[in-house]
Amino acid sequence: MTDIPVQHRYAEDLSHCYGCGKNNAQGLHIQTHWDGEQGVGRFTPRPEHIALPGFVYGGMLASLVDCHGVATAAASAAGDDGLPQRYVTASLHVDFLRPTPLGPELELVARVIERRGRKIVVEVEISALGEVRARGQVVAAPMPASMGRD
Amino acid sequence: MTDIPVQHRYAEDLSHCYGCGKNNAQGLHIQTHWDGEQGVGRFTPRPEHIALPGFVYGGMLASLVDCHGVATAAASAAGDDGLPQRYVTASLHVDFLRPTPLGPELELVARVIERRGRKIVVEVEISALGEVRARGQVVAAPMPASMGRD
Repeated sequence: MTDIPVQHRYAEDLSHCYGCGKNNAQGLHIQTHWDGEQGVGRFTPRPEHIALPGFVYGGMLASLVDCHGVATAAASAAGDDGLPQRYVTASLHVDFLRPTPLGPELELVARVIERRGRKIVVEVEISALGEVRARGQVVAAPMPASMGRD
Repeated sequence: MTDIPVQHRYAEDLSHCYGCGKNNAQGLHIQTHWDGEQGVGRFTPRPEHIALPGFVYGGMLASLVDCHGVATAAASAAGDDGLPQRYVTASLHVDFLRPTPLGPELELVARVIERRGRKIVVEVEISALGEVRARGQVVAAPMPASMGRD
């Protein structure tokens, strides 16, 4: 496993994402490490990322599924130079299996479960205190030319 | 249609949600108006809510689906006193149909499409510049006692 997060190997001009871009000063800075088989990460929501008192906001968990899933797709498809192609989210699904406590560090694990042509389907699990709290799925697609550089 | 957003009629001690709670100073303050048949709202993402340059972050759109969908479920189930019961998100799905431009105000429309026992399924559409950009679905469930007040 490399110590450099997948998101830090995205091209500089495509590193502004609110969820995970290293060039977004206000962003969440979600980071994914690729171990050759799965994407792993850790994230501690801030106190304001609350849903009901004591629990993490679902939109925050959806953001973790999104950025961690897409980075895992990108890393799984990286070329020999190790530089991940930029993927975007075609669809996102999250099942909130049980409440996620606000405070403890969250553990993220993601695996590629299917390839559909150029699309990559990734499953993401979010755990807290040793229990899976949310399970999500991202369909990641290569960045369309219309969203890229001029 | 009442001018008071659904989220401003939630109980004070359940109004801290990062997405829509009026008592969260750092939050997004997503607001839903219930017209008796559907939930409608408007939201303009901030410049930092970027995905790739020029486009809105998917996790931001998922947050809009989440809070707007759950508020629509709550409003649709409100009693004669008009006070909505607090619902939580059991699952969330978003299809990103086409890129969402960052800058223009977004329009939100949500409708109840199914009832499954005490759960309410809501479809949410997010439009920008007159075109639907994302379509989502929320399964909302009454707040479990384990997440509520002591």
